[in-house]
Amino acid sequence: MKRKNKLSKVILASNSPRRREILEQVGISFDVIPSDLEEVITQTEPNKIVLELSMQKAEDVYNKALKDILSSSDEENEHIIIAADTVVEVDGKIMGKPKDRQDAYNMINAIQGRTHNVLTGVTLIICNGFSNTRKISFYESTEVEIYDLTDEEINKYLDSDESYDKAGAYAVQGLFAAYVRKLNGDYYNVVGLPISRILRELRGML
Amino acid sequence: MKRKNKLSKVILASNSPRRREILEQVGISFDVIPSDLEEVITQTEPNKIVLELSMQKAEDVYNKALKDILSSSDEENEHIIIAADTVVEVDGKIMGKPKDRQDAYNMINAIQGRTHNVLTGVTLIICNGFSNTRKISFYESTEVEIYDLTDEEINKYLDSDESYDKAGAYAVQGLFAAYVRKLNGDYYNVVGLPISRILRELRGML
Repeated sequence: MKRKNKLSKVILASNSPRRREILEQVGISFDVIPSDLEEVITQTEPNKIVLELSMQKAEDVYNKALKDILSSSDEENEHIIIAADTVVEVDGKIMGKPKDRQDAYNMINAIQGRTHNVLTGVTLIICNGFSNTRKISFYESTEVEIYDLTDEEINKYLDSDESYDKAGAYAVQGLFAAYVRKLNGDYYNVVGLPISRILRELRGML
Repeated sequence: MKRKNKLSKVILASNSPRRREILEQVGISFDVIPSDLEEVITQTEPNKIVLELSMQKAEDVYNKALKDILSSSDEENEHIIIAADTVVEVDGKIMGKPKDRQDAYNMINAIQGRTHNVLTGVTLIICNGFSNTRKISFYESTEVEIYDLTDEEINKYLDSDESYDKAGAYAVQGLFAAYVRKLNGDYYNVVGLPISRILRELRGML
């Protein structure tokens, strides 16, 4: 009974509008506290990189926001931090967000006519008071196959400005849907948050 | 040059808000003329059923709307009708839209904890004047794996009323995203319109 009376407060450690929309879609209420930490990459494999970056974001938000809350009062409420990092990987090469149009062109050109992987690393921190903090990290990988694209199609897509804040320079949930032949894995992982896996992991932890 | 000056007018032969949103997402302007024909199923295999139903819808809209337009004037403009029908198939059993809550419960219970197929049949009719009408039909199939669901989870989902106008009683683009483990195939095919394939087929026909 005590379990059910606890209020879970969810904090999304990301400013991404796509991640916010996914949480809203499945009916979760949450606050946004983005991490503004400079990313430090010590790993080389894509799955380890997204895990590492999601951990950094989660810990940054824990340290700057949640630690104070928990040590002051509010011990009865449960706090859940959700942090994620998404990259595109093709032939072992990792793509984050494009720097400029040429960079975006190169990314789209590298993924057209073939299959690439989208990896999202997730770190969840669950706090029941200051002394009871648990943390779990995992990643999901989704294969995405893109149709052959002409230079004209790539340039038309880049004209839309949809590329600029997206890993791999495309938005599967936007205009780029016209060019995605198939997926193998979680669709929402490609958008930026593997929501069904996150909810399953949380269920196991709560 | 003449080709480029032609105006393509797209007609979506469906009242589905999801299908409308997908066309809008990829930047296509269109009118909606739904088919109100009684569906007649003579086939037994899921892929043939969705093909048959998409053909009936496309031809109904052609007969009731486009034939008049084309025989009167407007010969210079190109008209494109897009019709689609979506079903869920599991163990050879076909699921359309649920009749009531019990029916929806049975559908969700049949697909939880396993993989099912979502099939969308599409018929495209392209008219350049009355005498030049081409038609193509195809279907796309996407495998969808759903997590194990408890009775409580199924009933909570049914309380949302999201089920009632969806094939298989769920919306992958809605709350049900929380329960979808993975896809293999086109995500938009599950929503109800395999948009990238449609655009590729149209490109081959125009």
